[in-house]
Amino acid sequence: MAVKNTAQVVIGGKIITLGGYESEEYFQKVASYINNKIAELSEMPGYSRQPMETKHTLLSLNITDDYFKAKKQAEIFEQDLQQKDQEMYELKHELISLRMKLDETEKQKNSVSSPAQKNGNGTQIK
Amino acid sequence: MAVKNTAQVVIGGKIITLGGYESEEYFQKVASYINNKIAELSEMPGYSRQPMETKHTLLSLNITDDYFKAKKQAEIFEQDLQQKDQEMYELKHELISLRMKLDETEKQKNSVSSPAQKNGNGTQIK
Repeated sequence: MAVKNTAQVVIGGKIITLGGYESEEYFQKVASYINNKIAELSEMPGYSRQPMETKHTLLSLNITDDYFKAKKQAEIFEQDLQQKDQEMYELKHELISLRMKLDETEKQKNSVSSPAQKNGNGTQIK
Repeated sequence: MAVKNTAQVVIGGKIITLGGYESEEYFQKVASYINNKIAELSEMPGYSRQPMETKHTLLSLNITDDYFKAKKQAEIFEQDLQQKDQEMYELKHELISLRMKLDETEKQKNSVSSPAQKNGNGTQIK
């Protein structure tokens, strides 16, 4: 079903062809994100004097840090979701109990008032 | 308050000293994740023949892909949370309405039964 796409992107000033099932917009977003990371690192004092290998490692470390932060955030949200699911389950349970109690109370109210209203006689009230 | 930590880690077979406010466990987790990514890439056909620069770019692209996937997952969970918050708000609102209705119905039931029981006379029932 999915169509394999390719896109030429520029990463670190070099043209690179990316291919995969993601959209071209995604490839460009990935390239743009990496270029922004490189630009951020370039502003660090002493970065420009580092060997190419170190620059690449710093880039990977930096992206990995973003990845773990996003992953942690997803985990926190997932835990919140589980907690809310539990709370909603309890709320729904409470709602059902209340509806049943309301039905019962309405029946009692009607059984109290109806015979009296029909007969004009309070003695039938239990 | 936070203590700056440093840790020596091995990334791609090289010893690197990482420093920051994260724990040493975190630095090791980051290094371990990057090494696993390198190992995954090394299994791709033709990878070993690529220039070092290309290998590094492939690594960054791969980690960035994980980052965007984790970010997307966090966004989906966040939207789910907002939806659940809305649903919980409505459930709580419904609960309050039901409690008020139950209170009202109980009052009506009591005002129906009490005068009749006291007076033995149904005519006071409205």
